Amino acid sequence: MALIVQKYGGTSVADIERIKAVAERAASTARQGNKVIVVVSAMAGETDKFTKYAHEITDMPDEREMDLLLSSGERVTSALMAMAIQQLGLKSMSFTGRQVGIMTDSSHTKAVIEEIDASRLRKALDEGNIPVVAGFQGINEFSDVTTLGRGGSDTTAVAIAAALSADVCEIYTDVVGVFTADPRIVPDARKMERISYDEMLEMASLGAKVLNGRSVEFAKNYSVPLVVRSSFNQTPGTLVTMEDRDMEKTIITGITHDKNQARITLMRVPDRPGIASTIFEAIAAANINVDMIVQNVSSDDNATDLSFTVSKADSNKASGIIRKVSDEFGGKGVSMNSDVAKVSIVGVGMQSHFGVAARMFDTLSKAGINIMMISTSEIKISCVVDVSRIEEAVRALHDSFNLDKS
Amino acid sequence: MALIVQKYGGTSVADIERIKAVAERAASTARQGNKVIVVVSAMAGETDKFTKYAHEITDMPDEREMDLLLSSGERVTSALMAMAIQQLGLKSMSFTGRQVGIMTDSSHTKAVIEEIDASRLRKALDEGNIPVVAGFQGINEFSDVTTLGRGGSDTTAVAIAAALSADVCEIYTDVVGVFTADPRIVPDARKMERISYDEMLEMASLGAKVLNGRSVEFAKNYSVPLVVRSSFNQTPGTLVTMEDRDMEKTIITGITHDKNQARITLMRVPDRPGIASTIFEAIAAANINVDMIVQNVSSDDNATDLSFTVSKADSNKASGIIRKVSDEFGGKGVSMNSDVAKVSIVGVGMQSHFGVAARMFDTLSKAGINIMMISTSEIKISCVVDVSRIEEAVRALHDSFNLDKS
Repeated sequence: MALIVQKYGGTSVADIERIKAVAERAASTARQGNKVIVVVSAMAGETDKFTKYAHEITDMPDEREMDLLLSSGERVTSALMAMAIQQLGLKSMSFTGRQVGIMTDSSHTKAVIEEIDASRLRKALDEGNIPVVAGFQGINEFSDVTTLGRGGSDTTAVAIAAALSADVCEIYTDVVGVFTADPRIVPDARKMERISYDEMLEMASLGAKVLNGRSVEFAKNYSVPLVVRSSFNQTPGTLVTMEDRDMEKTIITGITHDKNQARITLMRVPDRPGIASTIFEAIAAANINVDMIVQNVSSDDNATDLSFTVSKADSNKASGIIRKVSDEFGGKGVSMNSDVAKVSIVGVGMQSHFGVAARMFDTLSKAGINIMMISTSEIKISCVVDVSRIEEAVRALHDSFNLDKS
Repeated sequence: MALIVQKYGGTSVADIERIKAVAERAASTARQGNKVIVVVSAMAGETDKFTKYAHEITDMPDEREMDLLLSSGERVTSALMAMAIQQLGLKSMSFTGRQVGIMTDSSHTKAVIEEIDASRLRKALDEGNIPVVAGFQGINEFSDVTTLGRGGSDTTAVAIAAALSADVCEIYTDVVGVFTADPRIVPDARKMERISYDEMLEMASLGAKVLNGRSVEFAKNYSVPLVVRSSFNQTPGTLVTMEDRDMEKTIITGITHDKNQARITLMRVPDRPGIASTIFEAIAAANINVDMIVQNVSSDDNATDLSFTVSKADSNKASGIIRKVSDEFGGKGVSMNSDVAKVSIVGVGMQSHFGVAARMFDTLSKAGINIMMISTSEIKISCVVDVSRIEEAVRALHDSFNLDKS
């Protein structure tokens, strides 16, 4: 008998018919002799509706109020799901974030889980229930409702799986698993059977939308096996787990891309200590995440060009800040390019194989695609290219690294 | 400086424009130097939507789950209202039933408030906030969400007003106050300036929908002055307060009617002790409320006819139960009439005036309207008549008791 946490996302519980279908799946897992905990998101569209309401009232909704507002969607789904499971003749009970004892810090709209008191869930399981937990939410020390930010229901599911030492945490979504590349761009992209936490983390941070990075990190830290799969069919999904020998044999696991990028370049800034920190402190103070940073070697005038990428949404704000900084330094101005995109290859195997970067650059070069920026980590290499060539780049790399073959 | 509790019903917060308008009203009350607490219902239509969802899943939704589901609507409104008040430059915070410390018993879907710990509300007021409370909900000893049943947000408002010794509890709705009769039926019906708790209680139980009986009773027990008024204009409403000398001078305060009635008659049941209790215990066991009961005097066969009224919704269930009981007793069968309605005159003044009942019967008789059943209390007289004549009956009585004149 296994303990299985099943998390169902917004499209999986989009309407009453979907909720009934998902209840059937949870019930059938339980009837096979497993203990099951269900974690649910808000019905697709609800969170957007609430956000729209708030923005009809104010441009800057108070975050404490926003959290109370947004947490309502998951509560509704959890009550409906518990009813749907009961209707199939099984015992079920809903639980809010508070009722499962999810204690968070007070960073409203992006709270971090500090503690889970799993005793009430354990009791419900022992009494033969399928507990249904409202995802995405907890409470802080003042007993105010908090939400966990983007992908928060995944985080709830993984945290509960960790707290109860579940055998597996299944993340149900509208895709059948993690692919070697976006199947809409690469027709022969292959669904992976397995991927390591670190690879999945890179994929998530690089723009693959299947899983949220925070939940993968949580799963890695607590060694919770994750399965990503579809609630719309019975296809086995992708297992996210610890790295093993087999994985290292594969040089490249997948290719991701991200069109939501803008490049900002400061031209001819003085090349002296402290400049970079001043620049990026100003950016960080505005809560903007910087992705890649490239600084060219200094030339004769003892000045350098410094480029970095941010998300398109932050690009105007970031370039405004940077223009001021550049003026203070007597730089030669700031340029912004929003027509850029990032393509990345990911794989734990590249640590033990030579020439992976060379092959990537060669592949892009042969396709006549110019590389604007490069960054690397132990298990990924990213290149910024012109957005008009991005799909071509993904296809060429998928081909070059033979990702269509398992 | 007064402490004012303002409760806004579903039509008063039906959309974002209405929420903004209501925020403006609360803010302006605060700017006049008052402390204000706002209690909100769910946006009109939300509760029905949730109920429909539940019934698409099951005919018998679990009541604990139903309460979690239904309580969400008020939470959403409370967060949006707090944002709207903040947007006007005032401090505001939302509070759920739990956060205001509304402790109830465990009768899900119709819970009774047992205790309010008003300390968090008091603190919020002291810090200069307009607290916005999600109506209709509390929690029980297991920390599960409960709801207070029909009119529950009114009850929340009155309970908070009582707990904080507020100067007045204003109930905002889509009508301008309590009328001497339904203005859709009696064009010259008059809005009352004042009405006593007891009269209001009778009016509420007799079908006037403006205020829920439980909240009036609560207000009476804790001497909370209630004002019923419209959130759509500035017309002063109706004050519900303690009875005084002036009120007794008016013989009749108002006329109500209720078309939601059905009459069930047991024919020729044996006239012996214990029969009536057996009948009404069976009805009560099915959670059906009986309104009027009339038993005719026994005739030669030592048997009697017994009639009672129930709401139309309960009529089939009730007559099914009664048929069984009648068979056990060897009664002569059961008849049901769904084409009946009840008209009532209400007034504390009738205690000190003779001939009120006679004038009522005379008025109906002169209009050629047959009276099927009669019941009386200290401050009201009700008659059951054919539903096709009910509006005529209301107009005739309004006229006869000169209710168009103040």
